[in-house]
Amino acid sequence: MAVIETNRDEPQGPKPLSVAFVRDAWYVASIGTELKSKILSTRLFGQPIVLFRGADNRPVALLDRCPHRNAPLSEGKLVEGQLQCGYHGWRFDSQGACVHVPGLCSEDYRRNQNATRFATYEQDGFIWIYGNPSVADPAPPESIACCDAKNYMTRRATYDVEATLHAVAENILDVPHTAYLHGGLFRKQGGETPIDVVVRRMADRVEAEFIGEKRPAGIVGRILAPGSGDVIHVDRFILPSWAQVEYQLGESYHMMGTNLLTPLDARTTRVFACFSLKSRIPAWLLWPFFRIVAKRIIKQDIRILKLQSETIELFGGEQFTSTEVDVLGLQIWQLLKQAQRGETQVSREPSERRFQMLV
Amino acid sequence: MAVIETNRDEPQGPKPLSVAFVRDAWYVASIGTELKSKILSTRLFGQPIVLFRGADNRPVALLDRCPHRNAPLSEGKLVEGQLQCGYHGWRFDSQGACVHVPGLCSEDYRRNQNATRFATYEQDGFIWIYGNPSVADPAPPESIACCDAKNYMTRRATYDVEATLHAVAENILDVPHTAYLHGGLFRKQGGETPIDVVVRRMADRVEAEFIGEKRPAGIVGRILAPGSGDVIHVDRFILPSWAQVEYQLGESYHMMGTNLLTPLDARTTRVFACFSLKSRIPAWLLWPFFRIVAKRIIKQDIRILKLQSETIELFGGEQFTSTEVDVLGLQIWQLLKQAQRGETQVSREPSERRFQMLV
Amino acid sequence: MAVIETNRDEPQGPKPLSVAFVRDAWYVASIGTELKSKILSTRLFGQPIVLFRGADNRPVALLDRCPHRNAPLSEGKLVEGQLQCGYHGWRFDSQGACVHVPGLCSEDYRRNQNATRFATYEQDGFIWIYGNPSVADPAPPESIACCDAKNYMTRRATYDVEATLHAVAENILDVPHTAYLHGGLFRKQGGETPIDVVVRRMADRVEAEFIGEKRPAGIVGRILAPGSGDVIHVDRFILPSWAQVEYQLGESYHMMGTNLLTPLDARTTRVFACFSLKSRIPAWLLWPFFRIVAKRIIKQDIRILKLQSETIELFGGEQFTSTEVDVLGLQIWQLLKQAQRGETQVSREPSERRFQMLV
Ligand code: FES
Ligand code: FES
Ligand code: FES
Repeated sequence: MAVIETNRDEPQGPKPLSVAFVRDAWYVASIGTELKSKILSTRLFGQPIVLFRGADNRPVALLDRCPHRNAPLSEGKLVEGQLQCGYHGWRFDSQGACVHVPGLCSEDYRRNQNATRFATYEQDGFIWIYGNPSVADPAPPESIACCDAKNYMTRRATYDVEATLHAVAENILDVPHTAYLHGGLFRKQGGETPIDVVVRRMADRVEAEFIGEKRPAGIVGRILAPGSGDVIHVDRFILPSWAQVEYQLGESYHMMGTNLLTPLDARTTRVFACFSLKSRIPAWLLWPFFRIVAKRIIKQDIRILKLQSETIELFGGEQFTSTEVDVLGLQIWQLLKQAQRGETQVSREPSERRFQMLV
Repeated sequence: MAVIETNRDEPQGPKPLSVAFVRDAWYVASIGTELKSKILSTRLFGQPIVLFRGADNRPVALLDRCPHRNAPLSEGKLVEGQLQCGYHGWRFDSQGACVHVPGLCSEDYRRNQNATRFATYEQDGFIWIYGNPSVADPAPPESIACCDAKNYMTRRATYDVEATLHAVAENILDVPHTAYLHGGLFRKQGGETPIDVVVRRMADRVEAEFIGEKRPAGIVGRILAPGSGDVIHVDRFILPSWAQVEYQLGESYHMMGTNLLTPLDARTTRVFACFSLKSRIPAWLLWPFFRIVAKRIIKQDIRILKLQSETIELFGGEQFTSTEVDVLGLQIWQLLKQAQRGETQVSREPSERRFQMLV
Repeated sequence: MAVIETNRDEPQGPKPLSVAFVRDAWYVASIGTELKSKILSTRLFGQPIVLFRGADNRPVALLDRCPHRNAPLSEGKLVEGQLQCGYHGWRFDSQGACVHVPGLCSEDYRRNQNATRFATYEQDGFIWIYGNPSVADPAPPESIACCDAKNYMTRRATYDVEATLHAVAENILDVPHTAYLHGGLFRKQGGETPIDVVVRRMADRVEAEFIGEKRPAGIVGRILAPGSGDVIHVDRFILPSWAQVEYQLGESYHMMGTNLLTPLDARTTRVFACFSLKSRIPAWLLWPFFRIVAKRIIKQDIRILKLQSETIELFGGEQFTSTEVDVLGLQIWQLLKQAQRGETQVSREPSERRFQMLV
């Protein structure tokens, strides 16, 4: 029986956007190599953030607003590893402390003058920032599976989507749309082969395993897995914002695509993709093909997600309906809401659900 | 004595825009020949609408929002007369019913999954949609007088105006502005000839007859009526949104310009003009001249109406004053408000008012 | 001891923009020579205003909204010194009185039909308008010191800034930012010379005198004062919106830069700069250099003030902190708030405060 659920408790009328800001968590702010001697500006939860490397080369993230007259600090410049505001020259160290106010005789300028600082961490080739600035020194972020691991080639990329983090995660982990939106690229339309789907829910994640799937059809499948045979395919959402797609063919092929989503604001999501591949064919030889296909897929996803957002806004909110083959969307939303309420650590028996879908 | 009225009951302070959405009525959504094998998107009362022709070639209008994840249906494609959403491939028939959900094994997907459908009708060369989607099968729209009638040449055109339906209707049916905004085109400034105006109000319409008017001066008049002599000139508003201008010169010349207004949203009005002409000179010969003049007039009207809307918005609302020569504007507004409240059918004694104006 | 103040009474959370509209006061609407036979449109306190010269060549300012159907009057044309609306041809005299309604037989059209008029005055080469239209005939504006005075060369210029009047006034009268935002142009960074600052507050103004300042460094200083020696430098804010910078070097050099600020709306300020110079070197010879330097400074100020406004809006309001060297900003704000409440004339003992700053 197909379980039909709406994405909300109440059945009728538009609902606000599915936005749950999980603040006590790490988000990627930049690819590590893109933060060099220049100042970068980004956003998190709608707040402007300025990024730079301090005197010790470690990344620094401050709220991008000078406490003096609110000029954006990202318009300033670096002076000896400190950030000097471009308006009146106030200077801030890597803790956000104001260390110089030009013109002022007294040194008594340290009250209220500090810039808000976010904890940072550099790992797996990314700059991470912690979403809650009142936590000075949080435990480091989790490592990304297979990232820069032995026998794996890892590539990083980034792009922006005009949609909620939830809509982007659901899109990345959704199977049926690939046959329609990306028609022909790696699944064909009107599939009639039933396969088993097992959905496992844990405290910090939910994953769907697709059992008995054939090698993906189309060009992607042929490049990824030139032989035939069964496939291990798992789609996985990990709190606060990781959308992971894993494919395995026997011992020789293994692909781990981890998409680290950063909510720039309620309806803009920056995707940091970390793609790790082990294969018999040298990965550097496959990469150019992957790139071309990935670019096309991403372009189509960006377009439909933007159109989806615009339609939702025109109607004043979401009004979704779901079926059984919306495998992960609803549970991702539940995880996000619980995490936003701080209930991530609630011990929860892992649950498992099994059903069939056509591919 | 000149009766001076304001457009509202209360005399001071800006009022909101004169917007009255009459939902239980037919509106033109498209010229018939413009809806072929392609999907069109339009709007009504601010709601996006998707238009297409079903398997039987009859027009279909659905709310342009997929019930699944709210992608716009107009981004999909037609498959055997059904509309297939471009995101996950859900398919809808000409009643808006969801008839296929890719991937789903069960057929039990028919609850909540339907797209909202608006009744449609094709008549007089236009595609009409009924503004209230909960009325499944309303009585057909009225026919347009003289449209495609014997001895008449009929032409259709469409353009958008950034103004309320009320402002557009008043503009089309207003006489004095023609001498100023369209100076020289068909009336001269500072006219000093008094003529009689008779205003007749009925249950669903109000019309003004101008008695003793000379043949319109200027280039339009000379083309329309090369001879001289008195003119029958009636300006007419018919609920919910028709602005009709009728000119007659003896037996041989008769022009019926019916402007069917569609409120795309509160401050955007699409005009579907249906222009029917009987004349001694072959109509196809006159048409090129009419076109050139009409284009110039419409361009001037579009411009001033947009500026009027912008000024009203800057001031936070309308603040109008009126005189006797604002012949129809106030009564059009009363008709619209009554119709919005569902009081169209209230039997009402036709009333008549007579006064003089200078042309 | 450095006095650290916030720009508001309450210490935490963003505050609304520092906007205080002082309506009972004169503002410059145009440079006199720019209002000739053409109609100009401008704004004051967010309200559109139309400017023209009446039959007697005196400036007229009306609310830029036709009382008939709210078309902007600035789209009309001048007919015998009267303003004729471009839509239906209503005509208004220099008092805003409606003197003609085309088509109307009766002359009884003078009720409610007048356009709102603002008092105007032409003086010191500027067109002034009085912010409160219900005051028909206010006392003339103050004269601008040194403007077109004997031995002085006076130049006028105008530019727009996307920031509050308060932020623009504070920017113009601020000393420390010149070494940073305009680095090298007329002050060098990291100055270590302590000078005395005397701040004098009067009923309608506040001024800061900088005592013991050296000739300004950099290119501006060298042009302004080729010799050396001490400088008299006063920065002055005069209600409702004058930001005045005065420099004197002995008898021979005197510069009075009066910036007359007009609040087009809450976050857009038009600056009318009136620059008067007395010098040994002929002023016409200095002017080209001044122009080049002023253009660059103004461009930098426009840019940072716009970025400041955008950041404040992103955060939902201002959150400023101040130190002693924010010499005038807080007192300008107090003057504006008092004037807005109508307390300008409150007799107040002039106060004086003295402290040191580094330049
Ligand atoms: S705004 Fe940053 S130093 Fe003044
Ligand atoms: S949004 Fe239309 S099928 Fe999913
Ligand atoms: S709007 Fe100005 S005359 Fe009608």
